[in-house]
Amino acid sequence: MAKILISTVPFGEKNRFPLELLKDKSIDYTINPLNKKFTEEELAKYIVDVDALIAGTEPITDYVLSKANKLKHISRVGIGLDSVDLAAAKNRNIEVSYTPDAPAPAVAELTLGLMLSLLRSVHISNLNMHNGKWDRIFGRRLSEIKLGIIGVGRIGLRVLRRTRAFGTPEILLNDIAPNHEIDREMKVKWTTKEDIFRNADLISLHLPLTHLTKNLISKRELLMMKKDALLINTSRGGIINENDLYNTMMDGYLNGVAIDVFEKEPYKGPLIEIDRCLLTSHMGSMSEDCRTRMEIEATEETVRYLSGLKLLNKVPLTEFKMQALK
Amino acid sequence: MAKILISTVPFGEKNRFPLELLKDKSIDYTINPLNKKFTEEELAKYIVDVDALIAGTEPITDYVLSKANKLKHISRVGIGLDSVDLAAAKNRNIEVSYTPDAPAPAVAELTLGLMLSLLRSVHISNLNMHNGKWDRIFGRRLSEIKLGIIGVGRIGLRVLRRTRAFGTPEILLNDIAPNHEIDREMKVKWTTKEDIFRNADLISLHLPLTHLTKNLISKRELLMMKKDALLINTSRGGIINENDLYNTMMDGYLNGVAIDVFEKEPYKGPLIEIDRCLLTSHMGSMSEDCRTRMEIEATEETVRYLSGLKLLNKVPLTEFKMQALK
Repeated sequence: MAKILISTVPFGEKNRFPLELLKDKSIDYTINPLNKKFTEEELAKYIVDVDALIAGTEPITDYVLSKANKLKHISRVGIGLDSVDLAAAKNRNIEVSYTPDAPAPAVAELTLGLMLSLLRSVHISNLNMHNGKWDRIFGRRLSEIKLGIIGVGRIGLRVLRRTRAFGTPEILLNDIAPNHEIDREMKVKWTTKEDIFRNADLISLHLPLTHLTKNLISKRELLMMKKDALLINTSRGGIINENDLYNTMMDGYLNGVAIDVFEKEPYKGPLIEIDRCLLTSHMGSMSEDCRTRMEIEATEETVRYLSGLKLLNKVPLTEFKMQALK
Repeated sequence: MAKILISTVPFGEKNRFPLELLKDKSIDYTINPLNKKFTEEELAKYIVDVDALIAGTEPITDYVLSKANKLKHISRVGIGLDSVDLAAAKNRNIEVSYTPDAPAPAVAELTLGLMLSLLRSVHISNLNMHNGKWDRIFGRRLSEIKLGIIGVGRIGLRVLRRTRAFGTPEILLNDIAPNHEIDREMKVKWTTKEDIFRNADLISLHLPLTHLTKNLISKRELLMMKKDALLINTSRGGIINENDLYNTMMDGYLNGVAIDVFEKEPYKGPLIEIDRCLLTSHMGSMSEDCRTRMEIEATEETVRYLSGLKLLNKVPLTEFKMQALK
């Protein structure tokens, strides 16, 4: 009987359908019993004798795969592939699938919420109020600011579309492959990252973590920004250098940041000391509908693999090539 | 020389233009020196010998007006008139003006931010993170819920329009005077308050505080709501009974509330003990552009009054009638 490991948690919690799919096929599954993100060592231990893996963002390294004596298929619940050593998987003839579309609406909507909170200092006022301090803080509306979006793919585009109801007048976009279809829909300016760093009032990142984007925003870039700029990262930890962000903010730069993703998760680092940091626990895709869709899509792909059917969501070759650009 | 009191604070802080308008006309002004909302006693003291008042939400009662030996004009920076005893003003031949349109865009945008925060528990995750606790909390998207808006005037309508970008499928509306123009723009259902209390997942209030709306949401109504309902008040304190809200939430009802306005401000009450309460310091209109517009409009009206020109923003008779319905 096929045996699978579900390393991502929570799983099947809000909607049990993914688990029922596995039960219907008499597939023997184990859900991560530690109920927290596996370290490399932990995953290496649990992956032995497993035929297929339904994975979160835990490190699927060459070392982990060297312990995976039976593994033939990895199904990522989500879009990011920075946690998977794709070349190592390929060398071992392990197929890799993912769910690139499912998380996008939830991440985009959370991002809009974070934008509006940052612009009005909702997080700071809430902390103050809970500490018994009343302070009416001035804010700005989306229609008063220059918005910069770096990475205009599935998620960045959805963020952009949702800002339209708010009448944002100046939108600066950057992407390695500009999508000029957008120019027909709304008034935007495609520009350099540096132009966005220097001139945007609010910058939101919607990038994969690759060798090109690792530490993309370090001290130099943070100091380029307007002193009262706002910055949001709901994509991947590691794109902003956390140490530089901490030091720069402690020096009084940036009016607010919203960070949902961290280099090491669960995050317990020093940004928690700064009230201007609006911090969430990697919750971008955690809406009930999107998370359920991601889990179902990933599970269906696993079932297809174990049933010998054609895979529908294999990671495309471009992703392998991108990761190989070391 | 005319002498005026500006009782609302902050004033002229982000944009000095309102103060320059007064200086240009050699009008002698005093800004509330206590830098906090006046009590009735404090206002009664400062209002003596003043010709005109530029007011916030401090209590302009019959008692206060009995001390205002020279007052002939009150210009409210904002839309709410619950703080002004309109009949007492009328009896003393004091004119009252307000700025009904200026705050609406800022209040609507804050409300959207609060909606998205509540739906995704952003405020709870931020508190947890700042206390070193990582907890990935499930949320819902606007497209997954039934939204209820009570009060569909200048602000409620703007909230409604901004939700369109998020694809909210079911919208329940209530207003004493339903505006059926909206039905042509989008799919909505006009219904009773009770239907909204019982069936909406997220309820947002956009009402004036009057004898009809005081304690509109008390224990009975809170217990009618879905146990996991979300509730937002960015309109006026007193519409939700704060004591009942506290007790009901302590008993485990409601998944989250966002409250920007309180019976007594500055607020220091027990809701601060509850992490599910997202609390802000009456910041609905506190965007730089809207606040500036409100201050300029209110000041221009004062200048018109003192120059003997026709007033453009006098409070309409309907407001006097509404308040007289005791």
